[in-house]
Amino acid sequence: MERVVEGTESGDTMALLDDDRLFPTDPAVRSLARELYQAVRDLPIISPHGHTDPRWFAENAAFSDPASLFVTPDHYVFRMLHSQGIALEALGVPRVDGGETERDSRRIWRLFAENYHLFRATPSRMWVNHALQTVFGVTERLSAGSADAIYDRIDAQLRTEAFRPRALFERFNIEAISTTESAIDDLKWHRMIRESGWAGKVVTAYRPDAVVDPEFAGFAENVARMGEMAGEDATTWAGYLAAHRNRRAFFKSFGATSSDHGHATARTEDLPQDVAARLFDTALQGRCTADEADAVRGHMLTEMARMSLDDGLVLQIHPGSARNHSAGILARFGRDKGYDIPTRTDYVAALAPLLNAVGERAELTIIVFTLDETSYSRELAPLAGVYPALRLGPPWWFHDSFEGMTRFREMATETAGFYNTVGFNDDTRAFCSIPARHDVARRVDCAFLATLVATGRLDRDEAPEVAHDFSYRLAKQAYRL
Amino acid sequence: MERVVEGTESGDTMALLDDDRLFPTDPAVRSLARELYQAVRDLPIISPHGHTDPRWFAENAAFSDPASLFVTPDHYVFRMLHSQGIALEALGVPRVDGGETERDSRRIWRLFAENYHLFRATPSRMWVNHALQTVFGVTERLSAGSADAIYDRIDAQLRTEAFRPRALFERFNIEAISTTESAIDDLKWHRMIRESGWAGKVVTAYRPDAVVDPEFAGFAENVARMGEMAGEDATTWAGYLAAHRNRRAFFKSFGATSSDHGHATARTEDLPQDVAARLFDTALQGRCTADEADAVRGHMLTEMARMSLDDGLVLQIHPGSARNHSAGILARFGRDKGYDIPTRTDYVAALAPLLNAVGERAELTIIVFTLDETSYSRELAPLAGVYPALRLGPPWWFHDSFEGMTRFREMATETAGFYNTVGFNDDTRAFCSIPARHDVARRVDCAFLATLVATGRLDRDEAPEVAHDFSYRLAKQAYRL
Amino acid sequence: MERVVEGTESGDTMALLDDDRLFPTDPAVRSLARELYQAVRDLPIISPHGHTDPRWFAENAAFSDPASLFVTPDHYVFRMLHSQGIALEALGVPRVDGGETERDSRRIWRLFAENYHLFRATPSRMWVNHALQTVFGVTERLSAGSADAIYDRIDAQLRTEAFRPRALFERFNIEAISTTESAIDDLKWHRMIRESGWAGKVVTAYRPDAVVDPEFAGFAENVARMGEMAGEDATTWAGYLAAHRNRRAFFKSFGATSSDHGHATARTEDLPQDVAARLFDTALQGRCTADEADAVRGHMLTEMARMSLDDGLVLQIHPGSARNHSAGILARFGRDKGYDIPTRTDYVAALAPLLNAVGERAELTIIVFTLDETSYSRELAPLAGVYPALRLGPPWWFHDSFEGMTRFREMATETAGFYNTVGFNDDTRAFCSIPARHDVARRVDCAFLATLVATGRLDRDEAPEVAHDFSYRLAKQAYRL
Repeated sequence: MERVVEGTESGDTMALLDDDRLFPTDPAVRSLARELYQAVRDLPIISPHGHTDPRWFAENAAFSDPASLFVTPDHYVFRMLHSQGIALEALGVPRVDGGETERDSRRIWRLFAENYHLFRATPSRMWVNHALQTVFGVTERLSAGSADAIYDRIDAQLRTEAFRPRALFERFNIEAISTTESAIDDLKWHRMIRESGWAGKVVTAYRPDAVVDPEFAGFAENVARMGEMAGEDATTWAGYLAAHRNRRAFFKSFGATSSDHGHATARTEDLPQDVAARLFDTALQGRCTADEADAVRGHMLTEMARMSLDDGLVLQIHPGSARNHSAGILARFGRDKGYDIPTRTDYVAALAPLLNAVGERAELTIIVFTLDETSYSRELAPLAGVYPALRLGPPWWFHDSFEGMTRFREMATETAGFYNTVGFNDDTRAFCSIPARHDVARRVDCAFLATLVATGRLDRDEAPEVAHDFSYRLAKQAYRL
Repeated sequence: MERVVEGTESGDTMALLDDDRLFPTDPAVRSLARELYQAVRDLPIISPHGHTDPRWFAENAAFSDPASLFVTPDHYVFRMLHSQGIALEALGVPRVDGGETERDSRRIWRLFAENYHLFRATPSRMWVNHALQTVFGVTERLSAGSADAIYDRIDAQLRTEAFRPRALFERFNIEAISTTESAIDDLKWHRMIRESGWAGKVVTAYRPDAVVDPEFAGFAENVARMGEMAGEDATTWAGYLAAHRNRRAFFKSFGATSSDHGHATARTEDLPQDVAARLFDTALQGRCTADEADAVRGHMLTEMARMSLDDGLVLQIHPGSARNHSAGILARFGRDKGYDIPTRTDYVAALAPLLNAVGERAELTIIVFTLDETSYSRELAPLAGVYPALRLGPPWWFHDSFEGMTRFREMATETAGFYNTVGFNDDTRAFCSIPARHDVARRVDCAFLATLVATGRLDRDEAPEVAHDFSYRLAKQAYRL
Repeated sequence: MERVVEGTESGDTMALLDDDRLFPTDPAVRSLARELYQAVRDLPIISPHGHTDPRWFAENAAFSDPASLFVTPDHYVFRMLHSQGIALEALGVPRVDGGETERDSRRIWRLFAENYHLFRATPSRMWVNHALQTVFGVTERLSAGSADAIYDRIDAQLRTEAFRPRALFERFNIEAISTTESAIDDLKWHRMIRESGWAGKVVTAYRPDAVVDPEFAGFAENVARMGEMAGEDATTWAGYLAAHRNRRAFFKSFGATSSDHGHATARTEDLPQDVAARLFDTALQGRCTADEADAVRGHMLTEMARMSLDDGLVLQIHPGSARNHSAGILARFGRDKGYDIPTRTDYVAALAPLLNAVGERAELTIIVFTLDETSYSRELAPLAGVYPALRLGPPWWFHDSFEGMTRFREMATETAGFYNTVGFNDDTRAFCSIPARHDVARRVDCAFLATLVATGRLDRDEAPEVAHDFSYRLAKQAYRL
C-alpha cells in the first residue's frame, strides 16, 4: 500500500484524497496528528473480523469487472442509491426468483457514477475514493462525465496479475485476515488456501448462528448436519455440545482464534443444564416460543464462553440488528440487502448471566459490539471497565466512520480507558475497502490522540505508543493473531 | 431582510449579533464557512411547515404591542421565565377560566427584560436578538435598563405600515410559507388571502389529528363535522375515508402540498380493511382502549399515505411529545403552555407496517421528525438511507438550535447522506423569528460543510451547491412548493 | 490550594499538569478560556454533595499511607486495574469473610504505578496527577520506575501536621462541604466536629434509603431504629412520617440543607394516604412485591418533597444505577466495589406524580441527576426548563469528566439555560481529589463559555459572571449553603 499512497497522495492537486483528511482543523493539533499518523500509516493490517470470501484467496481468480467489485455486492453502496429511488434490479442485485436484473457492468457503473453525489460526506465515498486512487490510480472524481474512462482503467487493471486477490492482499500489507464461516461449512476454500502453499495468513472464525438459533432457517437440519460432520449425536444435549467442541477444534485447525455470534438482542442466560437440555429438545422439535428461542441463543453464548475457557477462542457478540425490515425486499432479493436496521439494545441486564458465569476469568476474552451508540458511555464502558473478561469491539457497521469512531472514543475512553478496547475491525465484504477502512481508523485515532495531548489529557511522549497499540498491537493481542 | 441585516450587522460594534456567529472557531475554517454563507444568506425563505396565523396575512392588521409579539405567545420564552418562578399570569398568558392575568404590555416587557439573562446561550436569545436588531434596529442588549427604550422603539414601529404582516412577509423575503390547519377548519383566512389579490404565497397543510385520534377532545363530533363539510357520511368507514379525500382536495385547492400528523408515538399499522372499519366504529362510539386508539392513529397514517399516492400530498409525522405534563397548568391555562416533554421514541418496529405498505414507492414522500436524538444515527438515518419514500425532517422544536442542528448533521449524514434530508423548517408561531431561524440553519449548515471540506470529507467545489440545497432547493423540492 | 498550584504549575516543564489543560485548542478561544479561568480558579470550594468521611475532620488523624489514600478506597482506581485482570485482593480491598488481602501499602502502590498507563486519558489520571502535583509536589509521572520515590515522598508528608485532614481542608480552600449520612446515623462525628470548636464548615445530608426502601437490607429493623431515635412509633404510617420529620430536624441541627435519595429508577408516586399507609404496612411485614417496593420508594420521594416545603431541605434524586452487577464480587467484597452499572432511565412519566404534586412550588428545590446522558436533551432539560421546582444536577459519577461535562453543557444548556443548573458536585470519597475535580469543572465550564463567546452565543462581558456562577454562586444558592 505504501508506494501507491505515496505516489498519488503527496501534494498531487489532482488527488481524490486530501493528505490531511480527518485530522483536527487547528494547525498545531493537525500537525501533531499528522506526525502520529506518519508512524502508523504503513503498519501491517491486522483484520481480525470480516466477511471477505476465502474463495478469492483459494482460487486467486481475477475479479470480473468494476461494477461487481464496487457496486453489486456492497450494501452500503446500493442501499444509498436505492434510497433515492433506483431499483435494485438496475444495480444488478440478483433476484431470488432468478428474474431479470441488469447484467451490463458498464451500465451499472454509469448509474453509480451519475449518482455519486449522493455519497457526499459518507464513509462509502471516502472508501471508494481511497480504493480508486490508491489501488487503481484514479485521480478524477467519479461522475457521469468520468464514468467510462474510470471504468476502462479499472477494467484493464483487473485483467492483470497485479490485481488478483493474492497480489492485492500482499500489496495491502495484510499480516492476517479472518473470514467468517458457518459452523457447518466444510472450510474447503481454507483447505485449498493451506494446500496451495501461499504464505498469506487467512484464518476462519466460528459462526454457529445456524446451529444455535432455533429461529434460523433449517435449524434442526443444520444441527443434524453438524452432528454428522462432528461424528456426534447432536440430537442430544450432550452430543450437541460435544459436536460444537469438535467443530471448534476443526475451525481452530484452520487458524480460527475466535467465534462470532449475531443475535437480535444481547440477551444471555446461564440455565441449569437440565433446563437447557429440555429447551434444546423443544427447539429441535420446532416448538420453541419466541422467548424460548431467545433463551436458547442466550444460553448458548454462555456455553460458548465455557468452551472458550478450554480452547482459547475469543468470543465476539454482535447484537441488535433488526434484520430484513422490508418483507418485500427479503422475498424479492433475499438477506443482506441493506434492510438491517439497528435497534435499541440493552446490555446491563442482558449480559449479567454471562458475566456472572465467566466475566471474572481474565484468561477469557469476550468482545462485545453495539449498533446502539447510547450504550457506549452508559453501559458498555462501565461494564468493560470492571469485568476482566470483557472488551469493547470497535464501532460497527453504520458507525464505522469518522463521526462514529470519534463518538466511540469520546464516549468510551474516560470509563473504559484504552486497554479495554481491541483496535479496529474492517468487518467488510468489499476487499478493496480494507486499506481504506484501516486508514480511516488510524487517522481518526491519531486525531483523537492529538486532541488529548493538546488538551493535557495525555502526555506527548505517550501518544506514539498508543497510536501503535490502536493500529496494530491491540487487535493482534486481543484476537491472539 | 438583506438591507436590514447589512445595515445593522456589518462591523457595527454596537450590534447585538456577531457577524461570524455559529461559525467554526478555527480561522481558516471560519473563513470558508463565511464564504459559503455569503452565497446563501439572502436566498428567499421557503417555510414549508409552521404555525403562523393566516389571519395576519388575511387582515394585515398591525401587531398590537411588543409583549404580545415577543412574550405572551412564545412558549420558548414564557416557559424559561416560568422555570425560574415567574407566574404565567404575570406574563399575560390567558387563563382558561378567564381569570385575571397581566394586561399591561409594558409591565410584561419589563419582566422579560429584567430576566433576559436567563436566556443566555439559548436559541430564544439569538432569535430575539436577531429580530430586535434586523427587524427593529435595536443595538442595545435587552435589560432592566434598556427595557423601556426598546419597548418604545418597537411599539412605534409596529404602528407603521412597514411593520404590518404583509410588509414584513415581503421584507423577510419569504417565497412560500405553509400554515397548518385542522381538517375541519373552513380555511376562511386562506380564502380571504386569495381573494385579496395579494401576491404572497401562503398555503395551508392538512392536519387531521382532531378527526384521526380517538382520544382527541370531541373526536366523534369532529368526525361528524368533517362528514358534513365533505358531504359524506363519515360515520361509516368508507364514508370517513371519502371525507378525508374530499377535505384533502379542499386543502389542496388552498395550496396544501402536505399533511401533518402529531401523535404520541411513531406507531403505524396496516390493518385489514374490515378490522380497521370495526376499530373505527369502536372509536366513534368512544369505547376504544388506549391501545386501540393508538392502533387507529397508526393505521390512519397508512391510509393517509395511500391517499398521498393519489393526490401527491407529502406526509409529515411528528411523534414523541408527551403533551401537557402538568395537569394543573393544563387546567389553568390550556394546551401548548410549554409543558410538552419529549419522550423516548422507537421507529424501527413502529414504522414497519407503513414502510412495508408504501415505503418502496419512490413517488411518495414521507418526512419523519423526532424529539429523541438517539434515533438519528441508530434508527432514522438507516431507515431513510434505504427506503425510497422516507426522508428525515430537520431538527425539531427543542433541537432547532445550534447544538441540535450540529448533532443532527453529525449523526445522520454518514448513513442518510445529504439527499435524504429536506432542508429546514422553522415550525414557528413567532413571526419575527422566521428570518432568525432560517439564518441560524444556514449558518450551522455552512459551518458543517466548511468542516467537512477542511477535513477532506467533501470537495471544496461541491460545498456551494450543497449549501444552496440545504438553504433552498431541498425544502422546495421535498415539499413540492 | 492557590500557592501550591502556582508553585508547581506555572511553566514548570517537569509538571504533571499542562497549564492549559482542557481548554479549547484554537489559540484565540484558548486565550479567552484561560482568562475566564484565572478569575475563578482560586474561588473557595463549595462541595454540597459528597461522601467524605466526617471522622477525618472529627479526629483529624493523619492519613495512614499512600495506598490507602489513593488506591484501596477509590473504586474508580481499583475497578480499572481489576478490568485488566488484577485481583482486588492484590489491591488490598478488604474481603467480607476477612480472608487474606494485600496489606503492604508499598506493594499495592507499586502495582498501581506499574499499571498507571491503564489510566491514560481517564479522569482518574487527571485527578491523581493533580493531587500528586499540587498536594504532594510530585513532578514525575507515576510508573514502575518512579513508584518508590513517589511513595516515600507522599508517605513522609502524610506524617506531618500540614497533611492532616483539617489542614488539607483549609489548604484546599473549602468553604463548605456536605457529607452524607444514613437517616439512622447518630451523627457522632459531626457532633465531635462541632464540639471541637474547629471553624471548618462540614455539614451532613439526610439519606434515608435504609428506611425508605423496602428492599434495603434490614428495612423493618431500620425503621424500628429510626422510631426509637425519633421517639415515635414508626410502625404506623403517621408515626413513620413523624419520625422522618424528627430525624430531618436532627440532621438540620448538624447543618443539613439537603436530603439525598439513591433509587434504582426515577419512579415517583403520589398515592392517596390510605393506599400509602397500607403499602407501608405490607413493606414492614416484608411482603412487598418488587413493584410495590418501587412504589413505596417512589411515593416517599413525594412525601420527602412535602416535608421539604416545611423544613427547606433541598431534595436530591440520584436514580438509575444497577448496583452490584456481579453477585460473586458482592459476596466476596461487599457493596461499592465498582460493579454499579448505569442503566437506561426514564424521567418523563417517572417524575410526573412528584412534579404534579409539588413541581410548581418555586420555594422548593428538587435536584435531579442522571447516569443516562440521553435524558439530558430529551427529558431533563425540557422538564427543568419549565417546572419552577426542578433543577439539573451536574454530570454524575462516570460522567464527572471532561467529555461528560462538555456533553452535559452542550445537551442541556439550550433548553434549560444556565440558571436551572446548580454548579458542581464532587461527590467523592477521595479527599485529595476534591480540588482536582473542582478544577476540572471550572476549566470545562470556562472552555464552554469561551466557545459560546467565540461563536456569538454569549456576549464577552457576560462570561465572567457566568463563570463565577458556575464555580461558586449556583451551588451555594441552590443548596442554601
